[in-house]
Order: sequence, then structure tokens, then C-alpha cells
Amino acid sequence: MISATVDPDGIPASNSDTIPMSERKLVVIGGDAAGMSAASKVRREHKNREIVVFERGQHTSFSACGMPYMIAGMVDSPDDLIARKPEVFREKQNIDVRIRHEVTMIDTANKRVRVCNLADGSEFYEGYDDLLIATGASPVRPDMQGIGSEGVFGLSILQTGIAVFEYIRQQNPQKAVIVGGGYIGIEMAEALLTQDMDVSLIDMAPEVMITMDPDMGKLISEYMREQGVHLYLEEKLDHFRSENGRVTGVVTSKRTLDADLVILGMGVRPNSGLAEKAGIETGENGAIRVNKRMETSAAHIWAAGDCAESFHLISRRQVHIALGTVANKHGLIAGINISGGNEEFPGVTGTAITKMNGLEIARTGLNEKEADEAGIPFESTVIKSKTRSGYFPGSGDITVKLLASKKDNRLLGGQIVGAEGAAKRIDTIVTAITSGLTARDLAYMDLAYAPPFSPVWDPVQTAARQLIVAV
Amino acid sequence: MISATVDPDGIPASNSDTIPMSERKLVVIGGDAAGMSAASKVRREHKNREIVVFERGQHTSFSACGMPYMIAGMVDSPDDLIARKPEVFREKQNIDVRIRHEVTMIDTANKRVRVCNLADGSEFYEGYDDLLIATGASPVRPDMQGIGSEGVFGLSILQTGIAVFEYIRQQNPQKAVIVGGGYIGIEMAEALLTQDMDVSLIDMAPEVMITMDPDMGKLISEYMREQGVHLYLEEKLDHFRSENGRVTGVVTSKRTLDADLVILGMGVRPNSGLAEKAGIETGENGAIRVNKRMETSAAHIWAAGDCAESFHLISRRQVHIALGTVANKHGLIAGINISGGNEEFPGVTGTAITKMNGLEIARTGLNEKEADEAGIPFESTVIKSKTRSGYFPGSGDITVKLLASKKDNRLLGGQIVGAEGAAKRIDTIVTAITSGLTARDLAYMDLAYAPPFSPVWDPVQTAARQLIVAV
Repeated sequence: MISATVDPDGIPASNSDTIPMSERKLVVIGGDAAGMSAASKVRREHKNREIVVFERGQHTSFSACGMPYMIAGMVDSPDDLIARKPEVFREKQNIDVRIRHEVTMIDTANKRVRVCNLADGSEFYEGYDDLLIATGASPVRPDMQGIGSEGVFGLSILQTGIAVFEYIRQQNPQKAVIVGGGYIGIEMAEALLTQDMDVSLIDMAPEVMITMDPDMGKLISEYMREQGVHLYLEEKLDHFRSENGRVTGVVTSKRTLDADLVILGMGVRPNSGLAEKAGIETGENGAIRVNKRMETSAAHIWAAGDCAESFHLISRRQVHIALGTVANKHGLIAGINISGGNEEFPGVTGTAITKMNGLEIARTGLNEKEADEAGIPFESTVIKSKTRSGYFPGSGDITVKLLASKKDNRLLGGQIVGAEGAAKRIDTIVTAITSGLTARDLAYMDLAYAPPFSPVWDPVQTAARQLIVAV
Repeated sequence: MISATVDPDGIPASNSDTIPMSERKLVVIGGDAAGMSAASKVRREHKNREIVVFERGQHTSFSACGMPYMIAGMVDSPDDLIARKPEVFREKQNIDVRIRHEVTMIDTANKRVRVCNLADGSEFYEGYDDLLIATGASPVRPDMQGIGSEGVFGLSILQTGIAVFEYIRQQNPQKAVIVGGGYIGIEMAEALLTQDMDVSLIDMAPEVMITMDPDMGKLISEYMREQGVHLYLEEKLDHFRSENGRVTGVVTSKRTLDADLVILGMGVRPNSGLAEKAGIETGENGAIRVNKRMETSAAHIWAAGDCAESFHLISRRQVHIALGTVANKHGLIAGINISGGNEEFPGVTGTAITKMNGLEIARTGLNEKEADEAGIPFESTVIKSKTRSGYFPGSGDITVKLLASKKDNRLLGGQIVGAEGAAKRIDTIVTAITSGLTARDLAYMDLAYAPPFSPVWDPVQTAARQLIVAV
């Protein structure tokens, strides 16, 4: 099964254009959602094609999004976050997955990659007919004093999630500081509260969740404070204090917070360095540029997942969105095309969803700042309603914000903050904006109503009604 | 405020076409969702216009959909189901609501209605410039032996819901039989189980919920049996047995079931007799025919709500759908147009949602039988997935069925049965089919994912992927 080409110079392949599709060798760099989705799709289409996957970590196909819940103890075992293990790919799908193997160079001229076996440090070349780059993204780790201290974690691969989990059990930290109030920050605040820690969160912005407008972010900030999170907003991280190599505090532009656990939630950067060095085009966001077929600028090289760009259907710009749901779609589309199909990834609307204890949060499309940046004049509205009929047990508050174009009443984006049952309503808005619907179209649509599920006008429609252009 | 014209012949009005909009007198027949939505909208637009509403019952604007939950004791008081009381309409909105007043004739030639004051039996005429018929629908009550027995209830207006509630508390019935396995039947089964009754349900069809395809209905039938409901399917109601005027049993085509409470859930018929007698056009379903502005065939006469037809956006036929959500939209559109606006009700997709204990149920668009009847060749698929990430606590089963056109891959309809969080996903399908999306469009759409909310491919997309036409 092993197909490594150990002779570093002995790679044929210049005539690979003429190889029948079903015999072309596929090499995949990265064994997570995008890479393994593509590899699995190619295997389903071509039973006998050689498929090699190099993964520098120890795990394949794990749910990064599940790590906060694992740390919170809501998931029995880290294994539960793994959709499929390397040995299963090897045995059931005949996909040659090699963990702890890092690709260190792409040689496009000779259609080969250089690989380092991290177990023993040995290096070798592997030839390809088709190459998929699915190298993911890495958490931003600012180069500042104390960043390397024990107890400072950026969540990226499953190992780091497990490391946080074990650090908490072994070191019993009491005071956690989270840097950054985005999805990771919010989810980790929930997770660490369940571990009875004193939890602080710092962010430069005036409210948490800067992908929402500040009026919506404020609802989340207020809720987090009610839940016992100490928020320090409009404060800039300066450095980390440490003793004996272990973190003891976080120093911001305004104060020092004691800390024996620090979680970095400062965003991610695409792992596109390997591609860039090979001369493959990247975009403004640093992510690998791809067309809708997930092809890069280099022949026979594809990219998918957190390392690649997506087209934003509303702003009509290339964006970098590192989310598992996009990565899976990228991977499937790449796999279809690598198998000789012709499928296009239409693009994203920038959808995201999360929760903090009992508060659900979701957004899609353009917020006010993004609409301004895209040069689209808009109207916006914010409404308060209920998740179910007001008299039904468990009915909770929901706030919906919608934006529509001033020009043609088309919906541009939506944001939802509310109780259980609130956030998945974003899918209605996703479908509406993807379809180019107007606020009027949405307002009169036949959405589902029964007392356990919704008020008679779904809150999304109550918002849409406010944006109907006067008749 | 009272504007009754007591002289039965003294109605002016032949020149009402020339009356300015803001002075035209509006009479509304029926004080529930559609009627009061329209009346309220007209009042918001025209502060001084005379608005009279005749309601034959005692209540206005109540949630009929909430009655099963009131009977189950989940709602504190019947008053909680009333969105707004007659005195509030009178005092806050200057709408002259007269309860226990039944309109017995529409005189289109003289632009007046004949009204019976049910309190004293007196009759009078009331002139109108604009008339809105919002007479609702009534439960089907088959004309058979014992139908009039005490303990046999059809749920329609709030009084009947309260009557069931009180009958249960006062008579302490032990054996309930529900006739009909539609929404009312399913919701009442849940309600009566909470009252510790022995609950049986009979239906002529092979599975409950005939608005779903039988393969989906079977999942519901099985669940109901697990929950302790005795289902007697493919059995026809023959008559009711009674003693001393009180029901004691239900006789079907196959057996006799003991019963001291019977709930009729055999569907509803539009209350269109008044309109028909006045020569106003009705459709095949017996509902009042309206155009998209909610105008009937008679000048200055509008209809809205459960008595009126709707246009079905997928089958492209006129249909009768008696649901609160449609009634509210009808009423608002009628109100806008009666106020001189020009708004159209685009139509319905036949959406409905309900639940039985922990099982959520929803449907929209065409099922297989309806697609056949509409002459649309289709492909269908059924998939099983999870409501959340499989490892996330509370993740439950969900089954999604989708239909797409063979011709152009456009989605035609969807059905969902599953655990908490399953059913409201129907709104994504509603929005997709209303927008004319294909299965491919839906499959790659940027729907929201995070472990507490969805698997990485939303179940709706997992189903859509199965229907993508091969590329």
C-alpha cells in the first residue's frame, strides 16, 4: 500500500496530463475536513486510484469546533471528536493516510512534494499527478513577551484541545483569561465557567463579537457579564507575565489580570506559506486563491478548506472564512473535480452560529460595516420578539437584525441573538439572501408556525416587514 | 361610537365609490386573526375611518392553535390565548367590535349586511363601503348517530376549547377517542396523555398525518404507539354510542371502543355559505375565491383567513389552507389594500409544523401524491441524520425527505420528522422552494453549523445532496 518514492530525484510525471483519470495519483496535504472529504470522494469515484494523505498532526478528520465542549467535559472522550481515524481510512477506504508527516515543499515543476517524517526526521519526495493543499489555518499568536509560557494556549488542532483539557485537570488553574471575544472566546468562556474558574475576557473592540454590529454585540456582552464573565473591552493585550516559565498574568493597555490559564482567541491565519513558496497565488487575506472548481493558479494543484479563499455571494469579494462547514464543502467540490466531475462551489454568505450558555448567536451576510465597505446603501432594522408563542412554556426573547439594499429591497444580511431556538433561524435568512429575495418576499413567505415553535409571524418575518419599501 | 343603522331599508351608499378612502366605512365579519389583522392595519392607516367588526362568538383574536396546550394544562389560563380582547380594540384602537353578533346575510346590491344580536335575537342592517369576510372555518362534524352526544367535541372557537378543558376537570373522563390523525388529532393525543387518560386514535388512512407521505407518516405512527396511544388505522368511523345523552363509545368499521371523551379531528370546512348565498364566487374546495389582493368576485368585498382560498406556489393551484399563519398574512394584505395600498399575497407552499411529545413534525410544498396530481415528474430521497453533532449532548435523530423536479432539479417539497430542533428546519426548505432553488443550490448553501446546532452538513443539505443531478 505504501507508495513513497524514496529517490528524491527519480520522479517521472511530466506526461501526467495523458494519464487516464482513474489512474492519476492524488496527494493530499492535510488530513482534516477538507482533505479527507476530497480524498473520500475521489475514492468513491475511482476504486483503484492511488491516494496518499500527509498529515503533520496525529489525528484525521476531527471536529475543531467541538474542542470547547470537550474542555467543558460535555463530551465523553476526545475520540468522540474524531469522525474517522487514520487506520479506518487506510483499511476501509484504501486511502494511504500518513500522520506525523509534514510536507515541507511543493515542487510544481517536477510534480512532487518533499515530506518530513516527524517521527524520525527522515525526508523523502512523493510524486503526484494531482495535488490538493488542505493545510488549514493556525491561531494568531502575537510575538510578545510571555507568549511561550506554559498555560498559554491557542486552540487549533486536537492535540492543543487535549492539552488544555489535561492542563486543567492536572494544574487546577483558578483564574482564566481569554484574549479575544469572537466565537472561540465566547465558547471557551462557557467551557471554563463550567470548570468553576474565574473567567476574564479582554478585547480591543467596544463589544464582543465584532462580526456582529455593536448594537447586537452589546446584547452578548451584557449577557456574558450576567453569566459571571469579567469583560475588559477596549483594552489591548500588551504582554504576558510569567514565573518559572508558567503564565501568571495578562497585562493589557489598562491593567494586569492574574491568570494561570490563558486562551488565545485572536483569530486564525491560513496556512498558505507552503503554497506561496511554490509560487501559487494567494489573496489579500493571505489565503490561497481558488476558482469555483477549487483550482489554484498552478496546474493540477487544488486547494480547499481553511487555507483557501471563498467567494462571498453578497459582497462579491474573495474572503477567507475558516469554518468546518465551508471546509467540508470545499473538500467535496474539490473531490468531485479531481475525479473528473465539473462542480462549482457557489460561495459563502459568511454564516456563523454559536452560543454562550443559554444565549444563541448567529449571523450571515453583510453587517453594517461590511455593507458600507462594499459600497451598498442599506436600510436596517432591529426587532424584539419571542422564540415561541408568548404563552407557550419555554418561550424566550429573540432579537433579529436585518439589512436590505436601499436600491432594490434585496436582503443583505441578518444577525440573531436570543434564547433556545433563536439562532438556527439564520438559515432562513441565509437561503433568502442567497436567493436574492427582497424583504417583502421574506415577510410574506409561508414559514412554519405552531405555538411550540414560533409566534404566528416568525421573528425573521417581523423584522422583514419593517424593511418592506412603502407601497 | 356605535354606528348601527337600525332602519333596515334606510341604507344610502350607492355613491360609495366616490367617498375618499379615509372616510369609507369598513365592516368586518369575524373577529379573529384575519379580521382583526385587517381592521388593525386599516386603523393604523386611517385614524378616523369607521370600522365595525361583527363576531358571533365571545372572543376576538385568540390562538386556536394553542387550545391543545391549554387543555394539557401547559397554559395558565384561556385568557393567555387571547392576543387582544374586544374592549381593548374598542378603547385603544377605536374599532367597534361587537361580539355575539352574527351576520346572517350580505346584501351586495345595497352594500349592507343583516346582523343578528345573539344576546337578544334582535336583527338590524349595517351599511358598508368596504366589507371584509373573515368568517373562518368549522370542524367537520359528520351527520351520524350520536354526533350530538355530550362529550363529543370538535375544536374550533375558544369556547369549545374551554368546554373540553372544563369537561375534563368536571367529568374526569378516563377513555378518550380521537377521530382523525392530523395535526389536531396528534396534538390532542399529546394533551390527553398529560391528563392521564387512556387515549385511542382512529383514522381511515394506513398511517397518521396524511399530509406526509406514508413512509414519513409511519415514523409518526410508530412513535405515537411507543408513547402509549392506541392507534386504529384503516378504520372508518361509523357512529357514536351514547347513554343518557352522553357518549360511551365509538363504533368503527372494525370494532367498538369505549369512550367518555371524543375529539373530532376530521379537518375543517371554510365558512363560506354567507358569501355563496350573496353570489360571491367560491372555489372547488368551497373556500371563497380571492385574487392576490384578497378581493372577491364582488365589488368592494374582500375575504381573508380560513374562509378564503390561497394560491399554492408549487402546484400553481388554488388551495384551502386554514392556518393561523396564513390568516394573519391574508388579513394584513387585505388591510393594506382596503387602506388604499397595493400589496399582493404571493401565496403559500403548504407549510405546517407540529409535535407529539418529543417528536417534531413538519412539511412544506408537494408530497409524492401531490406532485403526481400536479403532473410533475419528481425524484425523492429520505435521509437519516442528527439534529446536532453526534457527540453533542442532546443530539437526536432526524429524518428528512425531499422531492425535486426530474426536469430541472428544482425542489418541490420537504418533510421532516425528528427530535427537538428538527422541525423548524422546514423553513430553509420553504425559502428554497419559494425561491425556485435546485437541490444543488441548497446542498452547497452556507447554512449555519456549530456542534450544539447541527452536524457539519445540515440534514436538509445531506438530503439535497442526494438529489443533485449527476454531473
